[in-house]
Amino acid sequence: MTLATADPFAWIDAAAETRQRAGLVRTLRPRPADSGLLDLASNDYLGLTLDPRVTDAAAEAARRWGGGATGSRLVTGTTELHAELERELAEFCGAEAALVFSSGYTANLAALTALTGPEALIVSDALNHASLIDGCRLSRARIARAAHKDPGAFRAELASRSETRAIAVSDSVFSVDGDAAPLAELAAACRDHGAALVVDDAHGLGVLGAGGSGAVAAAGLAGAPDVVTTVTLSKSLASQGGAVLGPRRVIEHLVQAARTFIFDTGLAPAAAGAALGALRVLRAEPERADRAREVAHLLADALRAEGFESSEPDAAVVSVRAPSPETAVAWAAEVRALGLGVGCFRPPSVPDRFSRLRLTARGDLTDDQISWAVSLLSRTAPEGARRDG
Amino acid sequence: MTLATADPFAWIDAAAETRQRAGLVRTLRPRPADSGLLDLASNDYLGLTLDPRVTDAAAEAARRWGGGATGSRLVTGTTELHAELERELAEFCGAEAALVFSSGYTANLAALTALTGPEALIVSDALNHASLIDGCRLSRARIARAAHKDPGAFRAELASRSETRAIAVSDSVFSVDGDAAPLAELAAACRDHGAALVVDDAHGLGVLGAGGSGAVAAAGLAGAPDVVTTVTLSKSLASQGGAVLGPRRVIEHLVQAARTFIFDTGLAPAAAGAALGALRVLRAEPERADRAREVAHLLADALRAEGFESSEPDAAVVSVRAPSPETAVAWAAEVRALGLGVGCFRPPSVPDRFSRLRLTARGDLTDDQISWAVSLLSRTAPEGARRDG
Ligand SMILES: Cc1ncc(COP(=O)(O)O)c(C=O)c1O
Ligand SMILES: Cc1ncc(COP(=O)(O)O)c(C=O)c1O
Repeated sequence: MTLATADPFAWIDAAAETRQRAGLVRTLRPRPADSGLLDLASNDYLGLTLDPRVTDAAAEAARRWGGGATGSRLVTGTTELHAELERELAEFCGAEAALVFSSGYTANLAALTALTGPEALIVSDALNHASLIDGCRLSRARIARAAHKDPGAFRAELASRSETRAIAVSDSVFSVDGDAAPLAELAAACRDHGAALVVDDAHGLGVLGAGGSGAVAAAGLAGAPDVVTTVTLSKSLASQGGAVLGPRRVIEHLVQAARTFIFDTGLAPAAAGAALGALRVLRAEPERADRAREVAHLLADALRAEGFESSEPDAAVVSVRAPSPETAVAWAAEVRALGLGVGCFRPPSVPDRFSRLRLTARGDLTDDQISWAVSLLSRTAPEGARRDG
Repeated sequence: MTLATADPFAWIDAAAETRQRAGLVRTLRPRPADSGLLDLASNDYLGLTLDPRVTDAAAEAARRWGGGATGSRLVTGTTELHAELERELAEFCGAEAALVFSSGYTANLAALTALTGPEALIVSDALNHASLIDGCRLSRARIARAAHKDPGAFRAELASRSETRAIAVSDSVFSVDGDAAPLAELAAACRDHGAALVVDDAHGLGVLGAGGSGAVAAAGLAGAPDVVTTVTLSKSLASQGGAVLGPRRVIEHLVQAARTFIFDTGLAPAAAGAALGALRVLRAEPERADRAREVAHLLADALRAEGFESSEPDAAVVSVRAPSPETAVAWAAEVRALGLGVGCFRPPSVPDRFSRLRLTARGDLTDDQISWAVSLLSRTAPEGARRDG
């Protein structure tokens, strides 16, 4: 085929036009440092991003260790700061060992690829996060999708497999609606069928479990020999990066085999410092985790009292249904103009056909801020947003 | 299958034993802040990691913007600092636009997945970086491996394809040996066959091109409508993160379609700040790039004068052959004990059967440091390391 005069990116314009017509264009909106918005859109669950103990730790780490890690973790990219963070994270979550990555995304790719292979089966919750789906795709394992939060479906796939090795994988808390997976039941299904369980606790760490030790600890699975947890440092821990936690032999195996560990530059010292700073704040003030869950219930109750359809929150995410994608976007834009930042999810980023606003129940929100946010959402609600019309 | 009592990670012990027997166990060695080593092992090509202008920029960004970006770039994770970094990077490299990612790894995954698909062909250099290989695997495109640095091989694959859409992808500088790809010839092959070229300039940015503007600019391809460049912020720019640079419509498409952009938390402000700080140092002191290339030649010449087999460096990486994996490891350990840090690559991390030491020609090395390093390598060289020896 010779296409000498062809424009190799002409198809992009066609794709853009289709997107435009469907009203699905996404826009990057650079934010200032002092937007003045009340933030219910971020994943800063404990409100620690601007805490001076966190930002000082980041600044101090950059000054002491440098702007970057300078190489792969296996060459020059492991500092004593990385080792310290790994020890404290593992201890906090009750795991034998931990390994830190440049992101939660690459931590998930590592866990799923290094722990499986063409000879294995992965049973994956139908609504798992994109990074887990990409990890499945990269793994070369056979992938079976199990119905959302359905231990019976996981069990059936594990039971009927022909592969000797298998893992089941699930988000602990699903990011759009904030609903929690039945981890204890999933672990039992795995045990009955000789499989391991991988849990992505991105939205559970810092919110669920005693003192925010996470959903795996909350389910009584901390330190289990057949459970591996992935976390991100970018939500409750107010930084960037990710980690895999689990039995020491699993962590040691990732060092030897995980491509996103071996062939990636180590996490920047400032990010390691910030996460360690946030972890220490949480250890000193474990009530922050309780408050995040309390805020979620206060928010959801108040929203339901206003007639909205809001799920019972399992962690620190509350979602509110909107009648349509267009009204969801307009609603979010209107409250933003009035000083409230909320997330807005619509197809295809939602698991069903329903568009919604996504509210983060930050643990540092006051009761007054919650009331103000709910009354603002109420005043601006589009027609059809309330259950009774 | 019921394996109720099975240990799902038993296979890991077997894999560890095999690795142990083959002498291929890799060890994490946490380094102190002040190791006292002369560092020729990192990818800190311009020696900026501990430059106060870089670390101050990181510290200042953390204090002003927080420990983390707090969310996806499409929700709360784009700050004005990210936008500023993207503008300056694009301008520096002569590209229309740039998009910053949490790592070079995820930038590569984004470019390869969002610009291809099941209907496309990717022709990939046989020695491309792991992140490009993973991007190929994730893309669902048909993958054709072309012989290393062989434009004819790329051309043949592009010419004989049945797919309408195709891209060719290559590292600009290959990380193990520091040899450069024939970018102009690759671009010509692409143009003749209606394909786009994706170049991973991780090891070229800051070293090649006028003032360190990169291998793509050096090849006269900056701003080309059919060339996309990926870079990392973790080597010359002394930070963490990655970026994709190219035509505006390509960058806009990545915002809409790249999973590692949409479903990943934005780069931490401190990392964005450090990279921007390093970029500004480089703009103010463009001679740093020239010096890195000069150091590479001085190093390679001196090593060859000592009788070692060292390639002619195309950028700032110099490799020296060792007679065997065991002697390579021992040689690296011995110079380390005497104060010199070098990289050590052996199978399977090398493209051929030859183990080697990998030396980084940091632009801030003095002539005395170069002489000292070479004389130390010479004094400690294993038998058989010299061409005639
Ligand atoms: C459930 C889940 N897993 C993994 C990730 C990826 O983590 P990170 O953004 O730190 O890379 C995210 C969000 O970003 C997430 O929501
Ligand atoms: C050629 C090449 N591309 C991409 C990467 C990944 O970049 P990063 O480490 O910033 O994720 C690396 C090294 O780490 C590399 O050497």
